[in-house]
Parts: sequence; C-alpha cells; structure tokens
Amino acid sequence: MHGRNKLQKVVVLRWGHRYRDQRLTTHVALTARALGASGLILSDIEDEKIRQTIEKVIRQWGGPFFLQMGVHWKQAVKEWKKRGGIVVHLTAYGENIQTSGVMNKIGATRKDVLVIVGSQKVPKEFFSEKVSDFNVAIGSQPHSECSSLAVFLDRLFEGQELRNEFKGAKVKIVPQIRGKKMVSLDSVS
Amino acid sequence: MHGRNKLQKVVVLRWGHRYRDQRLTTHVALTARALGASGLILSDIEDEKIRQTIEKVIRQWGGPFFLQMGVHWKQAVKEWKKRGGIVVHLTAYGENIQTSGVMNKIGATRKDVLVIVGSQKVPKEFFSEKVSDFNVAIGSQPHSECSSLAVFLDRLFEGQELRNEFKGAKVKIVPQIRGKKMVSLDSVS
Repeated sequence: MHGRNKLQKVVVLRWGHRYRDQRLTTHVALTARALGASGLILSDIEDEKIRQTIEKVIRQWGGPFFLQMGVHWKQAVKEWKKRGGIVVHLTAYGENIQTSGVMNKIGATRKDVLVIVGSQKVPKEFFSEKVSDFNVAIGSQPHSECSSLAVFLDRLFEGQELRNEFKGAKVKIVPQIRGKKMVSLDSVS
Repeated sequence: MHGRNKLQKVVVLRWGHRYRDQRLTTHVALTARALGASGLILSDIEDEKIRQTIEKVIRQWGGPFFLQMGVHWKQAVKEWKKRGGIVVHLTAYGENIQTSGVMNKIGATRKDVLVIVGSQKVPKEFFSEKVSDFNVAIGSQPHSECSSLAVFLDRLFEGQELRNEFKGAKVKIVPQIRGKKMVSLDSVS
C-alpha cells in the first residue's frame, strides 16, 4: 500500500484536547485519516461530538480508521512500546525534519510509529526517553498541530498515502482539472 | 532562500472565515508563515482577534509576514492576476498532488502563487478559469484546510522553507534531540 513504509503502521495520539478544541481535534483526526494513519487515540478524555463526526466520515468515505478515546496517555504509550512500536513526539523544540537526519532514523527502525500531537503545554516527560524515541520539529516556529502532523505523515509515507483507496466507502471523488465530480459506490454492507 | 522556487512568492487567501473559525484561521495563518508563505489575506471580513494573535507572533518570532483583511476575494484575485501571478485553489475535487503532474506545471510557470484555502462551501466560480489556474487536491478525502495548505507549501518549496530564518525575532528555538532550548535575540529595533 505504502512505498518504503508499507510495514510502518502509524497511529496518532492527540494529547491535551479540551472541548473548545473540538474543531481542531476533528481536523487532526481528518488529517490522520486522509494522510495514511491507521487511527487516532484521543487521550485522557471522551468527546462524543468528535466521535460522531469521525464515525460519520468513515461511514460515508470509508476506512479502515479507528478512533479510541479516554485512555490515559501513559497507558497508551506503555502498550504501544510493549508491542514493539516507537514513539515520535511532534514539537517545535525537536530535531528539524528537513535539516537533521531524523526521518531516516525513524524509517530505519521499520517499526510502527505512535505520533504524539500535543499542544503548547505538554508535560516535560514527553521529551524524555521514557516516552519519546524521537522529538521531531516541522520547523521551529509557532505552528499548527494539524499542519505538523500533515507534513510528518506526507514525508514518512513519501506521498504514497495519497494513492490510498478507502474500503467500504459510499461515495468517492473523481479528481478533475475543473469542477466537482463525486460518484456513489455500491458497497456491500 | 528557497530552492527551486526562490522566485515563486506565495500568498495565502483564506476564504469563508466566520468568527467560530478563529482558531482554525489562526492555524492557517501560522501554517502559512511557518511554511514559507509571504502573507495571508483574510478575505471579505476583518477579525481583530486574529490580527492581534498573528501580530504578536510576528513581533516575537520575526517576519517578514503580512496580514491583510477585509478585501473582497474577487478584488484580491483580480489584483494578483494583474500583477502576473497565478491562482491555485486547494480543493479535494481537484487534481491529485501526488498522482498528477500538477505541481510540475505550477513550478514551471515560475510565477507567484496565490493559494486559495476555502471551506466546504466555496462558490462554484473558484473552479473556473476566471479564478483558478489550477485546482489541487491533497488527496480526495475530507481534510483540514491547514493540513492541505501545509502539504502544498512543503511540496512547492521542496522542504527548503524549513531552513528559513526569520528577521527581527526576539526569540528563537534551538533544535534539540531532547528537551527545550530557546534563546533571546538582541535584535535592533
């Protein structure tokens, strides 16, 4: 399915969500799905609105994509590592994705990746070896967590994620130079 | 400054902003700045909160980056074209950034690019030759406008935008494998 990283499964862990962040976290989830991640863990909190929005997208546009909510972030990280995965923390303070060799190192592990997407005030622990194997910066400027995640996924999958076909979709866009073309699919449900 | 595209200046036009979108539009602006665009035009509306947030970021983290508000989108497009620039409309219905040759075509124009970032309900005109020279899809799935913009800029500038140094910054992050390092700069003001 993916080029270099056909064996590297990616799951996004969204930390620090508050209810005022509903639209932003929804955008993080849509980004994760559209750019090849297998699922999103919304840690430490449940948010029914987000669940409904994302489940509706999956029903309409296909999957697979999972959404897990309410698990404590430490627990999620612990389980991920126990299963042999690595943890990448996206932060403006980390190694530059462009000028350092960090993406090669991540690719070379050939392990599944849990990407932590935080906010301005993440716990200090996120930077430590106990939690993150790599701290990656999509540049060291104030940024959007959606955008950082998007660039990270696009580079990890080398753009191949944009060839993905989703399964069980009811509708599908057919790319056009101009105008809109959407087709209904007869999926067996 | 930028590799292939050192001559292609990019300005983002954010269309369809409503006050409930303040945080999202702020993220669009931060993305534009962090990933090498020269400025953001918030069309058809003024929003003081966004102006304050972005101006604070520029004071603290540097520029150049301009923010223009309230201009009617048609006027902005007309002026851009008059000055010889091209218009790229980011939409899930457009040509796939990965599987079509659209980015090569955009690069080959060597012209400055106005990127229109809309929302779900953009006017039909955006797709027409009167407005857009290219309609580009960061995949044909439901998406985030921040993320779409991020992938577009990262690919247009071939990642070189992440080497940018901003001028007049008061603070700067020094990338680290672990932890946070920020330095104060003595900029002449």
